[in-house]
Amino acid sequence: MANEKICEGDYVLLCLDARRTYMVKVETGKTFHTHKGYLNLDEVVGKDFGGAFRSSLGTEFTALKPSLTDYIMKSSRKTQITYPKDAALIVMFSGIGSGSRVAESGTGTGALTTALAHYVKPNGKVYTYELREEFQKTAEKNLKRANLLDFVELKNGDVTAGIEERDLDAVILDLATPWLVVPQAYTALKPSGIIVSFSPTIDQVVKTTEALKEAGFVFIETVECLMRAMQVERGKTRPHTMMTGHTGYITHARKAVKPLQETPKNSA
Amino acid sequence: MANEKICEGDYVLLCLDARRTYMVKVETGKTFHTHKGYLNLDEVVGKDFGGAFRSSLGTEFTALKPSLTDYIMKSSRKTQITYPKDAALIVMFSGIGSGSRVAESGTGTGALTTALAHYVKPNGKVYTYELREEFQKTAEKNLKRANLLDFVELKNGDVTAGIEERDLDAVILDLATPWLVVPQAYTALKPSGIIVSFSPTIDQVVKTTEALKEAGFVFIETVECLMRAMQVERGKTRPHTMMTGHTGYITHARKAVKPLQETPKNSA
Amino acid sequence: MANEKICEGDYVLLCLDARRTYMVKVETGKTFHTHKGYLNLDEVVGKDFGGAFRSSLGTEFTALKPSLTDYIMKSSRKTQITYPKDAALIVMFSGIGSGSRVAESGTGTGALTTALAHYVKPNGKVYTYELREEFQKTAEKNLKRANLLDFVELKNGDVTAGIEERDLDAVILDLATPWLVVPQAYTALKPSGIIVSFSPTIDQVVKTTEALKEAGFVFIETVECLMRAMQVERGKTRPHTMMTGHTGYITHARKAVKPLQETPKNSA
Amino acid sequence: MANEKICEGDYVLLCLDARRTYMVKVETGKTFHTHKGYLNLDEVVGKDFGGAFRSSLGTEFTALKPSLTDYIMKSSRKTQITYPKDAALIVMFSGIGSGSRVAESGTGTGALTTALAHYVKPNGKVYTYELREEFQKTAEKNLKRANLLDFVELKNGDVTAGIEERDLDAVILDLATPWLVVPQAYTALKPSGIIVSFSPTIDQVVKTTEALKEAGFVFIETVECLMRAMQVERGKTRPHTMMTGHTGYITHARKAVKPLQETPKNSA
Repeated sequence: MANEKICEGDYVLLCLDARRTYMVKVETGKTFHTHKGYLNLDEVVGKDFGGAFRSSLGTEFTALKPSLTDYIMKSSRKTQITYPKDAALIVMFSGIGSGSRVAESGTGTGALTTALAHYVKPNGKVYTYELREEFQKTAEKNLKRANLLDFVELKNGDVTAGIEERDLDAVILDLATPWLVVPQAYTALKPSGIIVSFSPTIDQVVKTTEALKEAGFVFIETVECLMRAMQVERGKTRPHTMMTGHTGYITHARKAVKPLQETPKNSA
Repeated sequence: MANEKICEGDYVLLCLDARRTYMVKVETGKTFHTHKGYLNLDEVVGKDFGGAFRSSLGTEFTALKPSLTDYIMKSSRKTQITYPKDAALIVMFSGIGSGSRVAESGTGTGALTTALAHYVKPNGKVYTYELREEFQKTAEKNLKRANLLDFVELKNGDVTAGIEERDLDAVILDLATPWLVVPQAYTALKPSGIIVSFSPTIDQVVKTTEALKEAGFVFIETVECLMRAMQVERGKTRPHTMMTGHTGYITHARKAVKPLQETPKNSA
Repeated sequence: MANEKICEGDYVLLCLDARRTYMVKVETGKTFHTHKGYLNLDEVVGKDFGGAFRSSLGTEFTALKPSLTDYIMKSSRKTQITYPKDAALIVMFSGIGSGSRVAESGTGTGALTTALAHYVKPNGKVYTYELREEFQKTAEKNLKRANLLDFVELKNGDVTAGIEERDLDAVILDLATPWLVVPQAYTALKPSGIIVSFSPTIDQVVKTTEALKEAGFVFIETVECLMRAMQVERGKTRPHTMMTGHTGYITHARKAVKPLQETPKNSA
Repeated sequence: MANEKICEGDYVLLCLDARRTYMVKVETGKTFHTHKGYLNLDEVVGKDFGGAFRSSLGTEFTALKPSLTDYIMKSSRKTQITYPKDAALIVMFSGIGSGSRVAESGTGTGALTTALAHYVKPNGKVYTYELREEFQKTAEKNLKRANLLDFVELKNGDVTAGIEERDLDAVILDLATPWLVVPQAYTALKPSGIIVSFSPTIDQVVKTTEALKEAGFVFIETVECLMRAMQVERGKTRPHTMMTGHTGYITHARKAVKPLQETPKNSA
């Protein structure tokens, strides 16, 4: 079987080392400049993904096929580095997979949307709500770059006013006031469906947890995840000095069917 | 659209609260006993997933449709609680999605295999190697329970002797001597393919990292992930007292095409 | 210089390994029983601290002179293992040293009192308040055992009603409602004096921080400390699996002199 | 009792908020410049510690009496922020207090020496070894500033060649090759005395632990400490985004008397 070739218009991840990678669109006649010299992108076209190229200063770059984590980390400079750990846990807790239908709010620059779309493809759909149009445009661009736009419906709307979809497998909240959207999420989810909320502050977590109990969700849990990178080298192995100490708390829960009609409380 | 009904033979997750859940196969004529009384499973058949049921002692359980994390956490008592965080990161770093072809070793009791199969379905495949037959049987049972056996090929073999597949999207290693399998993983992966190794000790990480460099992998990184659960209650919010302090380190890397023939060093 | 000998009535820390240590009072005619056999304490009298002794089953124990951390960890079974890290930081943030005068509330079983007394001796004093007499008795016993009772005044009283001392170097709060004691601590401290509060919940931290700002404290900071033990063995080195995920938050601040009379706000 | 006055020549900690503090020597005729305007230090002389002063731009600074943590954190820009947590644990594990005699190597810029001297005063002594004279000079200056030089003997020497003192209560190692000093530390310590070693890499920890076992130390333990600061504000409370992920591992152990002569192995 032949290796996959890099085509005009493809994105490649030019990798110098684990800390220095660059997402570049391959266009003939263009050059990519770094502090380690420039690369003629003409040379890259038609070569194998995974191949090595030398810059004008002789530094070797590997032209990797971008992976999901690359698309996430290059979605926005602000969310760089820290987001994949949270996206991974949000996706895992949500239970989604190929074919799932999931609502998300807000879209932001589409980092988490990218992860959700990656995992529901090819038969599922992500309905993502965002009020700010400039964010939507960035998200659309990022999703297109990752070839995931077909699995996403970008919606300009306010989820506190309602989620239009029904029988969803999961609802993902990453907005300032998640507790206000909990009732709408309950309505939009199918029974036993999963809600996952990501919030930076404790106060958001407490309000959201209270709203979840009130709305009829069960199996409510909140976790935080600390990811620490290691410097691995024989005789010098140690954790890196600086790390991200906090991004946000992840709260997840499942929709229970209410009310409890089969066995009334007074007859138990 | 009608809610999904619980059928004879289905598995349900009986949920008392976030810390006490039970994976139960629904069979008519059987009862499920807990310290909070017993449930007649006859009553559950034909009801909605997400519905509530009372035990003989009046305690309310919710009968949830099991999610991926439930199948992972109930795969083996030993890996309970701690595994989903690592499975989530391993999956994310591996870049796999629907349609991916991935090799894994060792299978163990199939917790990670379950996660991999969940994400590659319906068109992908997990080729999982295990030497110990008794583990394979447990894994097979766990995968069948999660309806994921169709997407897995359980192989009885020693990956240090070779991985039979070629052009794989990812290779996942969770065994005692990952460094010995790195050359085989290189051969089995397609260019730019991803290897992820999970190891409890620093020494394994160092040896594996050295083997990855030697074999021609790039973008090599090792992280560890600490997940801490919160007790959320207005006026009493705090992290839980006990946590899992360590499960293992996750090392991931990507296959670069070697040798670097296009631009010889002396002409650079 | 001769080694220090173990005398009748001394406490020794019998050490089997880092995880199994026993605080024992040396009394002639008594034996100390463990699952590894018994030791005749007669044999220990007159020997050097640091010496090794064999149990009836041949297991070797080292009879160490108890250190501060031993007295803290053996003060109460409930605070075992986790407390020294917090005591260390509380002491460090408080700025106390030999000669310092410090108030503490509540005394509890005296674990933190033991640390405070250790560091203010021989010329300083710890004024420790406790409402529950049974705790006071345990604390007194623990302090006596550690030879630190002379540097402590055990007071039966309610610090929310007032701290009797004045011009204190530090006030240490380890009670359910620290915010109620902040005004009393302000009055009791000398200018630039330090308050340190230890609380398990976020809500306590928020209320205490607000009370500190209101009372005239500055340089207010809250931290939490996670301590993780390592299993160190060539070829098998890794963090231990279980760890204490949370004990409490440490909030510290310093008393600023108020009001700001020298330069009235309207003339600035 | 009168408040303590700020005198010519004293150091004050000018505090703008918890993140912006400045250690300043009070000298008449001098001004202290910040981005928030300047302060005439003349105004500060004769005032109370803890008093507030306004800069030329109207910003209020509190002139605090420097505490131990301030001296540590201002000892060297490189060790700022992260060191007090480690100094606190090193001191606590070492068991030292007023009157203790302790050796340290290397002195560095004296941050840890400052902590050790603070806790052994007024009757104890810190013998601190350093090979590089320029570091010794900085350390001497830092110790003098903290009024702790009287309790320290700065020694220019190589501890791998030997520690001159005997019957020490503790030996503290913070150097590149602690395992080479372990035999010397054993000789210098009194029985049951404590050694504490601080090292950034796992490899140092493994070698040191092996050397400790070989030399006759017991109760050997290695820990790492993660300290995370909180942003505390009602409705917005959360951990800070960035934290120090790693400084070093702390290994501590106690000297057992060897050989085990009283009860030969073959007669046990």
